[in-house]
Amino acid sequence: MRFEKKDILDIDSLSREEITYILDTARGMKEISQRAVKKVPTLRGKTIVLFFQEPSTRTKISFELAGKRLSADTVAISKSSSSIVKGETLRDTVRTLESMKPDIIVMRHSSSGAASQVAKWVQCSVINAGDGTHAHPSQALLDMMTIQEEKGGFEGLRVSIVGDISHSRVARSNIVGLSRMGAHVTICAPGTMIPVGIEHMGCTVARDMDACVADADVVMMLRIQKERQGGSLLFPSEREYAALYGLNQTRLALAAKDALIMHPGPLNRGVEISTLVADGEQSVILDQVTNGVALRMALFYLVAGGSRNADSN
Amino acid sequence: MRFEKKDILDIDSLSREEITYILDTARGMKEISQRAVKKVPTLRGKTIVLFFQEPSTRTKISFELAGKRLSADTVAISKSSSSIVKGETLRDTVRTLESMKPDIIVMRHSSSGAASQVAKWVQCSVINAGDGTHAHPSQALLDMMTIQEEKGGFEGLRVSIVGDISHSRVARSNIVGLSRMGAHVTICAPGTMIPVGIEHMGCTVARDMDACVADADVVMMLRIQKERQGGSLLFPSEREYAALYGLNQTRLALAAKDALIMHPGPLNRGVEISTLVADGEQSVILDQVTNGVALRMALFYLVAGGSRNADSN
Amino acid sequence: MRFEKKDILDIDSLSREEITYILDTARGMKEISQRAVKKVPTLRGKTIVLFFQEPSTRTKISFELAGKRLSADTVAISKSSSSIVKGETLRDTVRTLESMKPDIIVMRHSSSGAASQVAKWVQCSVINAGDGTHAHPSQALLDMMTIQEEKGGFEGLRVSIVGDISHSRVARSNIVGLSRMGAHVTICAPGTMIPVGIEHMGCTVARDMDACVADADVVMMLRIQKERQGGSLLFPSEREYAALYGLNQTRLALAAKDALIMHPGPLNRGVEISTLVADGEQSVILDQVTNGVALRMALFYLVAGGSRNADSN
Repeated sequence: MRFEKKDILDIDSLSREEITYILDTARGMKEISQRAVKKVPTLRGKTIVLFFQEPSTRTKISFELAGKRLSADTVAISKSSSSIVKGETLRDTVRTLESMKPDIIVMRHSSSGAASQVAKWVQCSVINAGDGTHAHPSQALLDMMTIQEEKGGFEGLRVSIVGDISHSRVARSNIVGLSRMGAHVTICAPGTMIPVGIEHMGCTVARDMDACVADADVVMMLRIQKERQGGSLLFPSEREYAALYGLNQTRLALAAKDALIMHPGPLNRGVEISTLVADGEQSVILDQVTNGVALRMALFYLVAGGSRNADSN
Repeated sequence: MRFEKKDILDIDSLSREEITYILDTARGMKEISQRAVKKVPTLRGKTIVLFFQEPSTRTKISFELAGKRLSADTVAISKSSSSIVKGETLRDTVRTLESMKPDIIVMRHSSSGAASQVAKWVQCSVINAGDGTHAHPSQALLDMMTIQEEKGGFEGLRVSIVGDISHSRVARSNIVGLSRMGAHVTICAPGTMIPVGIEHMGCTVARDMDACVADADVVMMLRIQKERQGGSLLFPSEREYAALYGLNQTRLALAAKDALIMHPGPLNRGVEISTLVADGEQSVILDQVTNGVALRMALFYLVAGGSRNADSN
Repeated sequence: MRFEKKDILDIDSLSREEITYILDTARGMKEISQRAVKKVPTLRGKTIVLFFQEPSTRTKISFELAGKRLSADTVAISKSSSSIVKGETLRDTVRTLESMKPDIIVMRHSSSGAASQVAKWVQCSVINAGDGTHAHPSQALLDMMTIQEEKGGFEGLRVSIVGDISHSRVARSNIVGLSRMGAHVTICAPGTMIPVGIEHMGCTVARDMDACVADADVVMMLRIQKERQGGSLLFPSEREYAALYGLNQTRLALAAKDALIMHPGPLNRGVEISTLVADGEQSVILDQVTNGVALRMALFYLVAGGSRNADSN
């Protein structure tokens, strides 16, 4: 197969075959991080710009390490250092960046749709590292990679996603991706955190947390993003939230015996997930982080034309 | 020719021959950014410190990419992370940096003359990336590179520069450089933005914008730096400024038919330049950005002794 | 000898033989920074994370350059960009970092003991770049490297350390290390800046500054860290401090004729050290900076298993 996509903007635009191909490629990349010399010359002389307009540790470092392990040059632009403070438009900023001839722009932005818009403005590849509440495709793909590793596949798998679905680009990308690969996704959240019409994305809304977790093969907990809640009276207190929607050992017992516990991080221990569950045997939270680097190496390799070059040899 | 300068501090200290030699070298460097593998080993094992005391996207990234494309190691020091917050003097900061054995320090500073002062304190090369309202030589050189590409040369060329000349190190460096290369520079700005005695730098002051633009071969618009204006009553509103000193299509029609439109960025669209002009066929604004990387590669190569080494082979 | 330590957490845990071996290795590394090509492939494909939770210029840049000169990949995480702002625990942050498979984490943290704690949580190497008021082993080692270079050894050497001993991790690490190597350390500070029981660390407390400096072979001045003093009434004014505890030429005349003047930087000129002394012939303050890069290269090399690999060949 040849991977022909210039950009990775969301999961919606990836076919089942493309997702499978990305995951296969990522499995191959994972081995590189385990070597004594964790570096291959694959993308030597390629330039990757990390353009993050929202703070992030794990995602940015993960992309940066992925680039460096493929020998690409990475340059980072953060909000504070950028001309945005001088009132430049996003279009001017990214076209300026493009004029410096990068091969790939990785971008995180607070506006939904920003990455897709940018991809139309520039000829280089764009990888969406999170845009508003819309999509976070590399996170969903690394989640899928982790599930595939542990479960062998997706067909018929019961995946529960619990948390603030409305504000979660992670949830949205996972619902689309997992459904496409044949899994059954059930979600659960306080009413104010469930977007209207979410059923049309192919998932089921559970009536409560116990029902959501029951017999699940995978339980994916979302971070309560306090910074997004404002002062809403409808938002329960942390203690209430933990009681109604937190994953603890009692609830975990309702799930399938070998259910995986996932969380995109950072954790609010004692709120959406108890420490015993987060650090328990079924947790693959740190595997998600490890797989993140490999998955992002795969994305870089593929959008940079790796599969096309391999084909032509 | 051998390029013997240790530092690039301003345009004044560069001879006509040296400017020509820098532009020739930059043309050769430009080709590297167009390759599949955008990297040559020329400066492998050299260390470049990017010491930026004022925020900047384009200039810092441009220097960083220039260094990486020549395989140099780059390390960045921003104001917030630096010991400046602990009350260290500039001399101590740069002598500390020098003791770590960098080959080149690129510095931006809010005080005019800072780079020249630093160059006297350290033995490694210093490249001025903008000092107060004094000079921004790499910007002027990339502007000259862009003009030369499009117009073939400078002799007799009519260049108009419009904007806040008083606060613009870009204008100052361009006036000196373009005059030295044989171009006729005409400037235009509100009275408060024209420095006293500017005529002695070899340029003409136009009585109004229309007169300034008339028959120009190049129109270089400057960014209105709102952050530098304070609350002065003498400063017109943005709307008045656009009407009196903005470049729009009507005014552009007064210039030579194939006049180039330039701007160092970031743009205030609708203030000093209209969107139709900025994005029009005559605009070379993005070419300036592309050339910036090549020009800075040339500066690194030359101050690091590239031409001397080439000679001795 | 094989160097078997996974981590460099403090000087206390290093034997006399280990300190000697580190200093020997650093002397070899110093030569690399003096070459035209300041880079060796020793740690190619290794990943070093610079995790600095307190601002720092010199230490961070020094570690970064040390890593790059050994061809390691370095990635930096600063406080502002990290998930700490999102309320993640330190344990979760570092275990997340570890999951990305770095070889070494260099960390600076405001809490004493943070690095030791982290070293228990992760399997990769941890180098303490300063934890609270506890330890700053790489600084003490580079100080010792500088003393050894100039004085040939430590046995019987009289070293005076003057300043805020209570808040100084630099002082603490130097007292332990220099005593272990056979030097006699005498300290001097205002009463509020001397920790209770400091004599048990093997140093002498001088009754005043003149007594402390008298016949010293090395005078190490500490930075008055205004940011740590709060508004305490017990803290003398800068002028009083300079008079009572500052090093000026008159006081320097009390020391041995060829006494070395040291300071970890950044300097408060005119407070703890006069400009004539700081810039005088006996000052090795900038040598300390130069040696810092070499010493950190040695630490990276040794914790990454350099000596073990050398042995096995």
